[in-house]
Amino acid sequence: MTDPLASWNDGIAKRAILDFVAQVTTPDSPSFVPPRDRIAVFDNDGTLWVEQPLYVQAFFVFDRIQQLAPQHPEWQTQEPFASVLKGDLKAALSAGEPALVELVMATHAGMTTDEFAAIAKDWLATANHPTLHRPYTELVYQPMLELLAYLQANGFKTFIVSGGGVEFMRACTEQIYGIPPEQVIGSSNKTQFELRDGKPVILRLPELYFFNDKAGKPAAIQHYIGRRPIAAFGNSDGDLQMLQWTTAGSGASLGMIVRHTDGDREFAYDQGAMGNLKDALVEAEKEGWVVVDMQRDWNRIFKFAAYS
Amino acid sequence: MTDPLASWNDGIAKRAILDFVAQVTTPDSPSFVPPRDRIAVFDNDGTLWVEQPLYVQAFFVFDRIQQLAPQHPEWQTQEPFASVLKGDLKAALSAGEPALVELVMATHAGMTTDEFAAIAKDWLATANHPTLHRPYTELVYQPMLELLAYLQANGFKTFIVSGGGVEFMRACTEQIYGIPPEQVIGSSNKTQFELRDGKPVILRLPELYFFNDKAGKPAAIQHYIGRRPIAAFGNSDGDLQMLQWTTAGSGASLGMIVRHTDGDREFAYDQGAMGNLKDALVEAEKEGWVVVDMQRDWNRIFKFAAYS
Repeated sequence: MTDPLASWNDGIAKRAILDFVAQVTTPDSPSFVPPRDRIAVFDNDGTLWVEQPLYVQAFFVFDRIQQLAPQHPEWQTQEPFASVLKGDLKAALSAGEPALVELVMATHAGMTTDEFAAIAKDWLATANHPTLHRPYTELVYQPMLELLAYLQANGFKTFIVSGGGVEFMRACTEQIYGIPPEQVIGSSNKTQFELRDGKPVILRLPELYFFNDKAGKPAAIQHYIGRRPIAAFGNSDGDLQMLQWTTAGSGASLGMIVRHTDGDREFAYDQGAMGNLKDALVEAEKEGWVVVDMQRDWNRIFKFAAYS
Repeated sequence: MTDPLASWNDGIAKRAILDFVAQVTTPDSPSFVPPRDRIAVFDNDGTLWVEQPLYVQAFFVFDRIQQLAPQHPEWQTQEPFASVLKGDLKAALSAGEPALVELVMATHAGMTTDEFAAIAKDWLATANHPTLHRPYTELVYQPMLELLAYLQANGFKTFIVSGGGVEFMRACTEQIYGIPPEQVIGSSNKTQFELRDGKPVILRLPELYFFNDKAGKPAAIQHYIGRRPIAAFGNSDGDLQMLQWTTAGSGASLGMIVRHTDGDREFAYDQGAMGNLKDALVEAEKEGWVVVDMQRDWNRIFKFAAYS
């Protein structure tokens, strides 16, 4: 028999996964959970794929600003667009959340949902990571792909619950994770249905509808899924409340935090440009959540890398 | 072989369903649709279960107002509560939407999501329809149950897309339709995650988050499901845009409207207290949607009724 978690080294994290799955799937176990209640939720950025030096979607925003610039001569002098066009992403980001929202809305609204899906798919098919020089769709963690497949094979329904834009993620999540669009929960724009020359379209409006982070995550889980997950996987304080909600159920549960400790094979950070891991680490200790040490627990990070 | 649609009389509607399913599931058919794209969406009130003389959820609201009245002496004189407590539902409803929202919020907010689920489940387990004298959970249309099961057996993922409250519906939709909570899309309150004595809860706030009707339905379908359905079933103008969106896809699709024509076995109405069927009928003619005539097309309406 091949090991379904071959990229995981033997250790606390791998054993916690195997034990948990055995417990909830063994019919005469006191912790047995029927398949319909085997819900597992995964953060995306930094949990399933790379989030350094910036979120993948941030690079999409910056590339789109460059592409759209000829239609917006005013951006040459108008911040935060001017900094982006000069390639000074640090300056663009330092202007804070309102500036970031402005960049997102300039690139994520004003088209139909079908048009946006095509734009995002095209970009994901061609763009490369600035230092790893690979398509972003290859920068997914092989051990997490094995974990997703292992849970799915054991009757789990796996959901993404991420701060990323839901329609941006859906442009690749089925292909790279085997997770269908209806199991992807993210942040979203307001939209509007209308008839254009008799043809129905859904327009993306330049207004935030829902921001899926921190306390928003358990609220979204209840809103979209309608039952409490029994397993949750995250990597930052943005996932803290999702882990709290998941592991506060009455039966067996698994909370797991992916910690970025491997500067050679990936990136080493607790405090990143895009989200910190601090409070969730303290809570992990208290609550018995498993902390995955990427350097120690994973013998392989990406599919394309040789075993180390 | 038993007929999977035994409660449907032979005729246009039944043949349309059988033909459509054969088309999209036959691998060498030009209209073949892979299982992952076999999404079917169903309105609930008046499409899957009874909506006369009022929506089931309206009776829940009125019963809850009665139950909560001892804690709210001011309701005895304050409209729209006073009319409800006098049993004058017509007067309570005639006060218009703001009054209705006030009644809904008084009964659907101020508790945790777990508490609300228990309240709704208890009510559904005990309440009876005022004229049919049966639990509401029995007042589901047997032909539609057969249709749901037939589509599910043919690889379809079936979703409810209803104006009803999502958490109210989820209190019974798995039991009566075999549709899990994550496939139920409805109207919703705002919610808020918080820790109560260290225990995470999700509070229902007295504010509407999303009203899932008319043009909101296709927007919600895109937001929650993320791909266009290939079959849609409704019964009123509130379902018009959902049918337009569904049947405007590039491949084979099925749009169907359940028309209430049977005053003997159920109710006969196009203009009801709670939603009209007018524009969608005109559009059905133009677009080739199938109109189900309940009297003509269904040999049985409810499970408990004898074949007629």
